[in-house]
Amino acid sequence: MKRTRVITIAAATVALAAAGVGTAAAATSSNPHRDSHDIDKSLIEAFIDRHPKNVIVLIGDGMGTQEITAARYYQGVNNPLNVDRMDITGFDTTWSLKPAAAPPYLPDYDPDSASTGTMWATGEKTIDERISQGPSSAENVPGANLKTALEVAQERGMRTGDVSTAEITDATPAVQGSHISLRGCQGPANMAACATETKAAGGPGPIAEQLVDHKIDVILGGGRGRFEQTIPAGSGPDGGKTVVQSAQGKGYQYVTDAAGLDGISNANKPVLGLFTAGNMTVEWAGPAASLGKGNAPVACTETNRPANEPALADMTRKALSLLDANNRKGFFLQVEGASIDKQDHATNACGQIGETVAFDKAIGVALDFQKTHPGTLVVVTADHSHTSQIVSEDASGAGLPTGYSTNLLSKDGQTLTLTYGTAGFGGAGLPPVNVPPSQQHTGAVVPVWAKGPGALAVLGTNDHTDLFDVITSFRR
Amino acid sequence: MKRTRVITIAAATVALAAAGVGTAAAATSSNPHRDSHDIDKSLIEAFIDRHPKNVIVLIGDGMGTQEITAARYYQGVNNPLNVDRMDITGFDTTWSLKPAAAPPYLPDYDPDSASTGTMWATGEKTIDERISQGPSSAENVPGANLKTALEVAQERGMRTGDVSTAEITDATPAVQGSHISLRGCQGPANMAACATETKAAGGPGPIAEQLVDHKIDVILGGGRGRFEQTIPAGSGPDGGKTVVQSAQGKGYQYVTDAAGLDGISNANKPVLGLFTAGNMTVEWAGPAASLGKGNAPVACTETNRPANEPALADMTRKALSLLDANNRKGFFLQVEGASIDKQDHATNACGQIGETVAFDKAIGVALDFQKTHPGTLVVVTADHSHTSQIVSEDASGAGLPTGYSTNLLSKDGQTLTLTYGTAGFGGAGLPPVNVPPSQQHTGAVVPVWAKGPGALAVLGTNDHTDLFDVITSFRR
Repeated sequence: MKRTRVITIAAATVALAAAGVGTAAAATSSNPHRDSHDIDKSLIEAFIDRHPKNVIVLIGDGMGTQEITAARYYQGVNNPLNVDRMDITGFDTTWSLKPAAAPPYLPDYDPDSASTGTMWATGEKTIDERISQGPSSAENVPGANLKTALEVAQERGMRTGDVSTAEITDATPAVQGSHISLRGCQGPANMAACATETKAAGGPGPIAEQLVDHKIDVILGGGRGRFEQTIPAGSGPDGGKTVVQSAQGKGYQYVTDAAGLDGISNANKPVLGLFTAGNMTVEWAGPAASLGKGNAPVACTETNRPANEPALADMTRKALSLLDANNRKGFFLQVEGASIDKQDHATNACGQIGETVAFDKAIGVALDFQKTHPGTLVVVTADHSHTSQIVSEDASGAGLPTGYSTNLLSKDGQTLTLTYGTAGFGGAGLPPVNVPPSQQHTGAVVPVWAKGPGALAVLGTNDHTDLFDVITSFRR
Repeated sequence: MKRTRVITIAAATVALAAAGVGTAAAATSSNPHRDSHDIDKSLIEAFIDRHPKNVIVLIGDGMGTQEITAARYYQGVNNPLNVDRMDITGFDTTWSLKPAAAPPYLPDYDPDSASTGTMWATGEKTIDERISQGPSSAENVPGANLKTALEVAQERGMRTGDVSTAEITDATPAVQGSHISLRGCQGPANMAACATETKAAGGPGPIAEQLVDHKIDVILGGGRGRFEQTIPAGSGPDGGKTVVQSAQGKGYQYVTDAAGLDGISNANKPVLGLFTAGNMTVEWAGPAASLGKGNAPVACTETNRPANEPALADMTRKALSLLDANNRKGFFLQVEGASIDKQDHATNACGQIGETVAFDKAIGVALDFQKTHPGTLVVVTADHSHTSQIVSEDASGAGLPTGYSTNLLSKDGQTLTLTYGTAGFGGAGLPPVNVPPSQQHTGAVVPVWAKGPGALAVLGTNDHTDLFDVITSFRR
């Protein structure tokens, strides 16, 4: 499916030199970040060097154009986000494959996080629920595993990290450090649907074990419950241990709260930080969405996360510090803001916006690192688009959305109305159900932002599979 | 609100020269257009020259990321659009201003086509329904008019064109060649709400008269009904004439069908082409959207437009040919694919996709012109985002959208499901209304694509007001 496109810096250099020196032009932008991050500077940096030493991939799960705009507008129209510091931008298509007994595999326009994650992690399309394996309908097929960007980095002797606000065994973090036919097979006790893939059956075991077996240097997120499950007897030397005990046996430093993470200073031993049993607590809380006009506009409560759970920005900062320490060979780090998606599914506008803002703070940490480590490529994108839409606060009667709406008071003091309506049909002649069911993903292209060596390749319209080449274009 | 960002080509040239010649890197994309339109070539072209001779602005009304993706997927995932030939891409925010008796004017997150059009046409924010005038609550305020990009081009002796599939007096085409307090004041008989702005009252008259009075060289679209209205007595020398007669008196060549347009060969006299009484006929037809699961998937009928109406691509080709003939000073042309928005309002998936494909063909015409006239800047964007969303074909029960869905059979033979749910609330405890009311605009950033001199300024995240500087960065 892919075609090779040759980029010749020589031609660029000659052409630009021919343009003559001394010409200057002024352009303006209402984006104040442009003062210090002008387009030319970003472009020249990316033009000169196509091969990063370090790669940081940040995934805003479900963060389509509506979601990023909702966060931007909530924070104030003249108060740009950190992601707005990134000048090299494009769009990626995200279609996955439909299950079939054999090729051809046909397009599925509304993908999940497993198939989309597999795209940038491996460069290949697969079916929904599949983690870094091809689309074959058979389980545990020899050769089905697709090499991931994290594995490519490890083969080159680079350090690696995997950070998420979800269970770290959830689909998006799983795609870099595991291969399994169904995303649900996360812990030793969750393998019923992946019976041929247990270690006892000669397979690689559940996602939790695979992440540890991959010896990823920094693993930070939720999902402690999966790692506290006991590995069954007959699974090899770790049978009878929990996955945590297995990790500690492999040399992992294990922490379970923010203070523990702060205390880690040894960058020469791997780190496993699991801060909640399930997904990490969302940053913000607010009113429930409802049918019709929705609530009187209110501001979100921004203090929902307990202090013993680190923020995504804190996990990102710590991961960068550990991965970069005395490291000549570079690193590969994936960071996921997971609950943008989960709160969009849940029609929780404040939850969704708070997670987007928290994710944006992690982007800020990555960009600050990139500034002092210009050999670093930072790529930000979403895995797929989602449901929330910004609509008019003035609608009334039948002009109101059919679904679930919330009215927020933005930091500019204005009403920001979000609506969710991709699930909740009540039946023929019936109103939508009162308690909104999980909303759907949507199919629109997702935004992509990049900065640093190799960034130019995200410009224009590409597919999420193309991102694999971008994030593995490591220094030679 | 704007800040100046200095672009220094000299620094770029030196930096690139310092990078040394001979380095080559290969990158891949699944986008086959990348074979012949590689990123570097587009960037170098835009790097060297920031000042276009000609500017073509193409507006897909309501064409957010869901709408462009729906058209791309309907046409086939391996059959990219013409817009996918454009490598220089970014995002624009589109918020407008809320009405107020005096400043400060606060943000409105869900704008209309008048306020958004005024943004790129003039570089300034205004209130909804306002055409290239400031946000003051008073009508016909001296000095309220904001200079438009088309007027800047005219002052430089450039030729100008305004093309749309809507009534040419509709908001988006109106913003370049008229100034009025309410978008509805389109023809001499539509001035009740703009009483102080009639010519009899010393104002500039309705949009139709203003477009003609502006002596725009090429005016092509729908809206003949507005121009067949009679200018009232007391309106100056044209009182008692229709606007068509007024135009003819000013030297306009007047045509009303595709054959008439084909027959125009004199580029030295202006052209008024009005091909329908109202909006032009949409290209495609298909099934009506309905609540719940929607129709059994079908392909769209692609032959809805009568042959006597020119396609948008035909109007664009003719406009370019007339504007470029023996023209040393260059031209400014705006082209609108208007009914993407109108069919999105109407929950007509085939209508919407057909108009997007027709708009994309006009983009192809502009890009082909740009290829042979590299001094031309092509900018493509939407004025605002809209309602349609691509959702799962597999949903059932309460997992189905709350609104109005349509199932189409894509050219890959797969079901493409679109849903619309930003209007249609039936009341407390009632189902959504059966005949969907006009759907809402939505607030997400819109995609921006550019190619040619000056294109780099669209990269990253900007505001629609910033586009004014981009499209008026004419050659010096």
